[in-house]
Amino acid sequence: MNIPKEIIITEVCPRDGFQSLPEIISTEDKIEIINQLMNCGYSQIEVTSFVHPKAIPQLKDASEVLNGINRRKDVKLRALVPNLKGLERAIEAGVDKVKLMLSATDSHSLSNANRKTFDAMKEFEPLVTRAQHSSIIVSGSISVIFGCPYEGDVPIERISEICKRYIDLGIYDISLADTTGMANPVKVKRIVGQIRDLYPELKFSMHLHNTRGMAFANAVAGFEEGITDFDSSVAGLGGCPYAPNASGNIASEDIIHGFEEMGVQTGIDLDKVILIGKALQERFPVYSNSFILKAGKCSDLHLAPKCQEKIG
Amino acid sequence: MNIPKEIIITEVCPRDGFQSLPEIISTEDKIEIINQLMNCGYSQIEVTSFVHPKAIPQLKDASEVLNGINRRKDVKLRALVPNLKGLERAIEAGVDKVKLMLSATDSHSLSNANRKTFDAMKEFEPLVTRAQHSSIIVSGSISVIFGCPYEGDVPIERISEICKRYIDLGIYDISLADTTGMANPVKVKRIVGQIRDLYPELKFSMHLHNTRGMAFANAVAGFEEGITDFDSSVAGLGGCPYAPNASGNIASEDIIHGFEEMGVQTGIDLDKVILIGKALQERFPVYSNSFILKAGKCSDLHLAPKCQEKIG
Repeated sequence: MNIPKEIIITEVCPRDGFQSLPEIISTEDKIEIINQLMNCGYSQIEVTSFVHPKAIPQLKDASEVLNGINRRKDVKLRALVPNLKGLERAIEAGVDKVKLMLSATDSHSLSNANRKTFDAMKEFEPLVTRAQHSSIIVSGSISVIFGCPYEGDVPIERISEICKRYIDLGIYDISLADTTGMANPVKVKRIVGQIRDLYPELKFSMHLHNTRGMAFANAVAGFEEGITDFDSSVAGLGGCPYAPNASGNIASEDIIHGFEEMGVQTGIDLDKVILIGKALQERFPVYSNSFILKAGKCSDLHLAPKCQEKIG
Repeated sequence: MNIPKEIIITEVCPRDGFQSLPEIISTEDKIEIINQLMNCGYSQIEVTSFVHPKAIPQLKDASEVLNGINRRKDVKLRALVPNLKGLERAIEAGVDKVKLMLSATDSHSLSNANRKTFDAMKEFEPLVTRAQHSSIIVSGSISVIFGCPYEGDVPIERISEICKRYIDLGIYDISLADTTGMANPVKVKRIVGQIRDLYPELKFSMHLHNTRGMAFANAVAGFEEGITDFDSSVAGLGGCPYAPNASGNIASEDIIHGFEEMGVQTGIDLDKVILIGKALQERFPVYSNSFILKAGKCSDLHLAPKCQEKIG
């Protein structure tokens, strides 16, 4: 394989993982977990979402969490913002980056944001202006890009139009999200290849869910198409709303381990991530989904048995 | 991707899945499950292993199971045989193919078969002669080829020597087994590429375990290197002896679904496999490991919610 030698893993457990948990985690615990994650070598952590407290009560303490953590210059803090009010809160809390949520299909956009895709994009304009005013980096996203649970495949023309409008907004950093795990390696290579050729000025990252067991294969497919920036969640926290107990986010320890085994550097201390994952798995056993926490790393060799009982 | 349009999936649950279950399944139930599997469109099923009954009590009824099932001309029945005695039983039971088990490393071979790798291969000679005499197809295997839990990486020189000796034995059909899930896509492409170039006369298949979440990515990597023959186990039955609760065989429904989503035909009725998988999962919930049984197929679309509650 002719592949890059390093990738960036963005830890999203404090946002995507926590928001899917039914049990409220205390602000102190969130701060403690994010502080631990900041010491793992991640260059970027998605710490929270500045949504309306009633929409996601778990994240209502977003500002307090950001105020409480020990900042590090080498770790960029990203937050989701749904609207101008959320952006103001994010700026006040001192995030480095904000990410705008957008669905590839109208039906998913209506169910998630109460407005159609291109209507939602129009409302991004004042947000981009406001963020630029405070030197906050704005990234975009395209949820359900590899398949929508309501509409199925998304036409490439529509994806292309979304990319074009992101460029018009001045947003060049776009997360391709397989929100409900409907991607496959062939589809990833086709879509990523097409939009990369159409818009070489865009920088794509991937947000993968392991709902149907293909997340790592999809990451490798994206990687082979030049993507070197992936989201993941420690302990695999973050489920799938359409299928109880189904896997959600690819686990950080699984994607870090997989790429490191392939000879690709992440700059992250896998053993530290595993320790954090074990604690989370112990606390939220039903919501964690991780291979490495169960099986250990490939490099954890076993002692060969000394002899075998003779049979027959 | 420049890829073949179809693959062969060999169902191994009746052997690899059942042998890992602590609860003995009745002969009648085994026959019933194999009969159901034979109606799914599989062209090949690994029905049992003719090992010593004391080694794997679960499979002691191998002959009765083979005698009881409804044969179909379009489904080849394969069995594992560890020695001449097992081969005689397999021939008497009327299998179409036998597979010889071999470990890539001496430590794994000693722990599994009480003899070193090349000593085991020497004992294959009379088996091949005997099988040819009865027109039984003999295939070989190389367990732990992508990594040994005792020794780690296996040198390519050793893998090459094993391939050479298989050719000397007249065995050209070889299963590359990632017995404890230590492969990754880069390693798969490197090893498969090297041995395919060295021995173009050999036909390789893959037996993948999802221990560390990379089985589907490894299948795709092998597929891109020209492999079109994969083992899998319905409901993902078949665990990992080194890690309790860790995933074992890649689930048939997961690999069939994944490849079909990629536009690759398997000839298998996925819905029928899912039904069998659901029944097995219900009976052995702790031992099954399947994404599709939890999440459903990508094509199972959901109804979009009609409206959303206004917040704030």
